[in-house]
Amino acid sequence: MEAMYFEDLEVGAVREHAGRMVSAEEIIEFGRKFDPEPFHIDPIAAKQSVFGGLVASGAHTFAIWRRMDWESVQDKDWVLIAGAGFDEMRLRLPVRPGDVMRLHSQLIEKIPSRSKPDRGLIRSRETLFNQHDEIVMTLVGSAMVARRPK
Amino acid sequence: MEAMYFEDLEVGAVREHAGRMVSAEEIIEFGRKFDPEPFHIDPIAAKQSVFGGLVASGAHTFAIWRRMDWESVQDKDWVLIAGAGFDEMRLRLPVRPGDVMRLHSQLIEKIPSRSKPDRGLIRSRETLFNQHDEIVMTLVGSAMVARRPK
Repeated sequence: MEAMYFEDLEVGAVREHAGRMVSAEEIIEFGRKFDPEPFHIDPIAAKQSVFGGLVASGAHTFAIWRRMDWESVQDKDWVLIAGAGFDEMRLRLPVRPGDVMRLHSQLIEKIPSRSKPDRGLIRSRETLFNQHDEIVMTLVGSAMVARRPK
Repeated sequence: MEAMYFEDLEVGAVREHAGRMVSAEEIIEFGRKFDPEPFHIDPIAAKQSVFGGLVASGAHTFAIWRRMDWESVQDKDWVLIAGAGFDEMRLRLPVRPGDVMRLHSQLIEKIPSRSKPDRGLIRSRETLFNQHDEIVMTLVGSAMVARRPK
């Protein structure tokens, strides 16, 4: 596997990764730990909620995105330094038990660091779809990537 | 407990909530599920990383924020409809094993819905500190809250 540096990443390039199924058990387990609203942890109470049934916590949807994002680069040797931040995260539709996620990620910007010549910032538009090709979450991610050593 | 509607929430109001300790076990468990980078799951490999030791996944830090945010309103009966989105999330310092988190949340904006007169959007600036009063994460959260029925 060849190392992919800042110079090797192209604005416009797309990554796709699919196939993560989200179970009721996983939704409830995550909800109990991090977001114990009735509609994340109790299928019966969830029926009476605005969602009409069990839905994943937004923090869970974000964690699933991160896992799929990680998986999508396992066949690429990106020289990632660190994640830097996230903007415009929108929870557009709830994730429900049995939903199968698909990630679409497009590189939208590259900004060489002014202060640190060994790295650059990349920004990507991230979209998570369900099995009906409906958008469940969008966000813009930023990360620091190493520049090719001279 | 009296229900708190959109009308009852004041711009500038602050919520504080403290005392969540983050263990190495929790960092590793979350990392294995959602973000299996060596510096999230392997204390020995983490020592060789840019972080110099085990650190929590950014998705984990966000989930911890959500849990503390949830806990901070358990003595208030907010009539929350749903979370709507997150902006300007910045991971400023890593969360390390043994760190103890403190949440500071300030309401910064209220926007009545034009299309749905039963609700309004609230925005809050959220800051997560560690036990050294260093900022580990900041974000701006948006949520839909019900208006007081007439």
